[in-house]
Amino acid sequence: MPVFAFAIGVAARDVQGNCIDCFYPAPLKEPDGDLGDAISKAFKPGTATVRAEQVRDFVQTRQPALAPVLETERELIATLLPADKAVSSTPEAFLKLHLLSHRLTLPNSMNLDGIFAHLQTVAWTTEGAIALADLPERQLRARLAGRHFEVLSVDKFPKMANYVIPSGVRIADSSRIRLGAYLGEGTTVMPSGAVNFNAAALGPNMVEGRISQGVVLGQGSDLGGGASTMGTLAGGGEITITIGRQCLIGANGGTGIPLGDRCTIEAGLYITAGTRVTVIDEDGNRVRVARGRELAGGSDMLFIRHSESGEVQCRTNRKAIALNEQLHAHN
Amino acid sequence: MPVFAFAIGVAARDVQGNCIDCFYPAPLKEPDGDLGDAISKAFKPGTATVRAEQVRDFVQTRQPALAPVLETERELIATLLPADKAVSSTPEAFLKLHLLSHRLTLPNSMNLDGIFAHLQTVAWTTEGAIALADLPERQLRARLAGRHFEVLSVDKFPKMANYVIPSGVRIADSSRIRLGAYLGEGTTVMPSGAVNFNAAALGPNMVEGRISQGVVLGQGSDLGGGASTMGTLAGGGEITITIGRQCLIGANGGTGIPLGDRCTIEAGLYITAGTRVTVIDEDGNRVRVARGRELAGGSDMLFIRHSESGEVQCRTNRKAIALNEQLHAHN
Amino acid sequence: MPVFAFAIGVAARDVQGNCIDCFYPAPLKEPDGDLGDAISKAFKPGTATVRAEQVRDFVQTRQPALAPVLETERELIATLLPADKAVSSTPEAFLKLHLLSHRLTLPNSMNLDGIFAHLQTVAWTTEGAIALADLPERQLRARLAGRHFEVLSVDKFPKMANYVIPSGVRIADSSRIRLGAYLGEGTTVMPSGAVNFNAAALGPNMVEGRISQGVVLGQGSDLGGGASTMGTLAGGGEITITIGRQCLIGANGGTGIPLGDRCTIEAGLYITAGTRVTVIDEDGNRVRVARGRELAGGSDMLFIRHSESGEVQCRTNRKAIALNEQLHAHN
Repeated sequence: MPVFAFAIGVAARDVQGNCIDCFYPAPLKEPDGDLGDAISKAFKPGTATVRAEQVRDFVQTRQPALAPVLETERELIATLLPADKAVSSTPEAFLKLHLLSHRLTLPNSMNLDGIFAHLQTVAWTTEGAIALADLPERQLRARLAGRHFEVLSVDKFPKMANYVIPSGVRIADSSRIRLGAYLGEGTTVMPSGAVNFNAAALGPNMVEGRISQGVVLGQGSDLGGGASTMGTLAGGGEITITIGRQCLIGANGGTGIPLGDRCTIEAGLYITAGTRVTVIDEDGNRVRVARGRELAGGSDMLFIRHSESGEVQCRTNRKAIALNEQLHAHN
Repeated sequence: MPVFAFAIGVAARDVQGNCIDCFYPAPLKEPDGDLGDAISKAFKPGTATVRAEQVRDFVQTRQPALAPVLETERELIATLLPADKAVSSTPEAFLKLHLLSHRLTLPNSMNLDGIFAHLQTVAWTTEGAIALADLPERQLRARLAGRHFEVLSVDKFPKMANYVIPSGVRIADSSRIRLGAYLGEGTTVMPSGAVNFNAAALGPNMVEGRISQGVVLGQGSDLGGGASTMGTLAGGGEITITIGRQCLIGANGGTGIPLGDRCTIEAGLYITAGTRVTVIDEDGNRVRVARGRELAGGSDMLFIRHSESGEVQCRTNRKAIALNEQLHAHN
Repeated sequence: MPVFAFAIGVAARDVQGNCIDCFYPAPLKEPDGDLGDAISKAFKPGTATVRAEQVRDFVQTRQPALAPVLETERELIATLLPADKAVSSTPEAFLKLHLLSHRLTLPNSMNLDGIFAHLQTVAWTTEGAIALADLPERQLRARLAGRHFEVLSVDKFPKMANYVIPSGVRIADSSRIRLGAYLGEGTTVMPSGAVNFNAAALGPNMVEGRISQGVVLGQGSDLGGGASTMGTLAGGGEITITIGRQCLIGANGGTGIPLGDRCTIEAGLYITAGTRVTVIDEDGNRVRVARGRELAGGSDMLFIRHSESGEVQCRTNRKAIALNEQLHAHN
């Protein structure tokens, strides 16, 4: 049996026993022959509840990083996905989100159909995930007991940072990065930065803007403060936005078209698929007026709105964008 | 005696005994005859501290959801407002904020005069509301004890999510929604979304921008990432902004004028009362140049800044804004 | 021996014993003669670990606010900087950040060279600062124990609010203000506001936008929702941005040039050093076209993008910016 993904973890349940949260400390994607065989032999497809005793051999020989689970009396879960099919359960949805945040797969490379339907909207609190039906009584009882009980978010997706911190990243405010975000080595997300699930900063990147679902920001690119990338879920169209290497989207700017490498959009300018852009060549000649979508994916483009004429222009971009040395040297 | 609002709750006090925080799990607004009579008989106008024993009959017969309060030794409070007058106490201020967040009243429909004066600026922490005068010693003692003590905000208004989560909403980051916000069924507030007190998303809505104090966002409207609505407190003028149904304010755009239904402001464009807007009819003819304020409240308007001429235009908006199906189906 | 800065505090260490976090409740800068002499006599330059007993006399006679430290068995630290040199240790880096947030020094007035190198990137959690190497096991063990463990940020800089709340400020979301920010009396930071280290709102100010590293916002100025100030670290150039008194940067606007007093940038407009700005005098005459950098530091300027011509203009600004009375009266 092939193994697409496998993980041992800990689940949280609501009072009815429904799984509402899964934590997999060391997920695996397409494990190699020997390890894959060991998983196929020891586990069945789908999700099973297991006791520490049942996974002792596997953990000791194959995943020693999971050793602490062997000391627990708590119920564990083991989820095995033989293939990358549509999401059919909550533990499976969580496993796929973990694969992204553990950098085992890139955005837009897995089948995430059905993921919304299999993630319950719950309250993420300082006492863990709590079903909304159970929340009011929990809040009241905490108040009566004089115990502070903080509701941090109410969402289908938890914050990534409570599941994994990938190496070499900085995150100013963990509430802005969903589990399922892919943050590459050397990525800094500032307070106004946000990264959705199935979205990536490949790293190194400075992210002060919003990386929408499906969007990938390439190596060395800089997303300025409040800058926007149009997603495919809300507002955006069918185009998936990819931003190449060494690009700069200025503060409060944005893009609704994919960009190649070394592109710049000046601060405050939003380029959409429908924007009429006057293209200007390296010698300063006006070449033509193109729609944004016609320029999609091009490299070495500098987009500005001319401050005398108000005309949106695309010029050849000669200035390389170098991320600040000091910031990244010690990241 | 008429009853405008009534609630039983739990208060927090500073070391001097001043009330700094009130939690009312089940506030009532203008209760009907029988219930109103029962309240008038059992309680006096204003706020009284009560023991569980004193409210046992009322809770058991009238508000069984409050049953857990009957088990407490803790002091409770009961606040009764016969009429909707200017805010004259902290428990009253909190009660009015609860009415909004429990969807019992819409923004701009209550007398909130004096609310700032009756809300003390306190530290909202993982150990509850703490008066600023008491904070430094609390912080030092927690450090010395090796106990983490988190200050989440310093404000007159607490976050809504620690008081009530209205049905059918998602909130990416609870720190951005103040108690007194009104979030309608089917509203999703993303990480860059924010909703002030006395402000509403009537639902269903996708809110990735800022809903300022006094602003109401209508059914099916979408406030894009970082989009701004001008409030009446800071920066804005005297006009209260209402946005109708099926509108879209694009990412990093904004409005300083009220909008009717099916209006769109393109991403990155800010329309203010003073903006000179060239109005273009359905046949593409230039009709006139109007100030933003002259267009206030109109429907079926599409605002763009023409990307060749830099001219801000208002066109008839033919494209309906449909919120993403999948997102809302499982909300 | 001169004393540039001195403080007694509490340190947190990783499992190897490296200092990763320092809390100084009452830092001192350039203490006057007698106090300075007492410090010079009692302490050596650099950072020493001390027991309560060793600082008893000093605390009782010189810093009674620190009395709680005398009751602890915990290791304390004492950091003494004879002069303002480049940062050479973690306790020193934290001490300089404290000086800023305690309003003992203004941004850009201290030598912060090397500060990035001496601040370890750690996880700031509900169980305190935790080295990233120690985090995965901590997260797993907390889950197995059924205990919620929240990772709030992963950064070199902690949030200011867990160290000091300067008088007269409001902070909607503490995760957006780094230790090392300077918040003056009467400053309100809204949910979309952010203040980096070595950056200031001198107060009173309404801050709904981002104050980048090195930027200073003057008295009575208002930074609108999502407004941007260009920093010197990422994206910005060599110019340090200072914004004078009574300025207004409109929502989603921004500046890459310093401004004097009583300047306004309209909502949605970003002025950079390279923007070609048409200067218009008080009588409405077009004077010249200047680059943004040529206008840097000027007062009484109103920047708009003309909504008919798309031209960026600088006009004499006749309208004073008055912060909302009610908001600030009860701050």
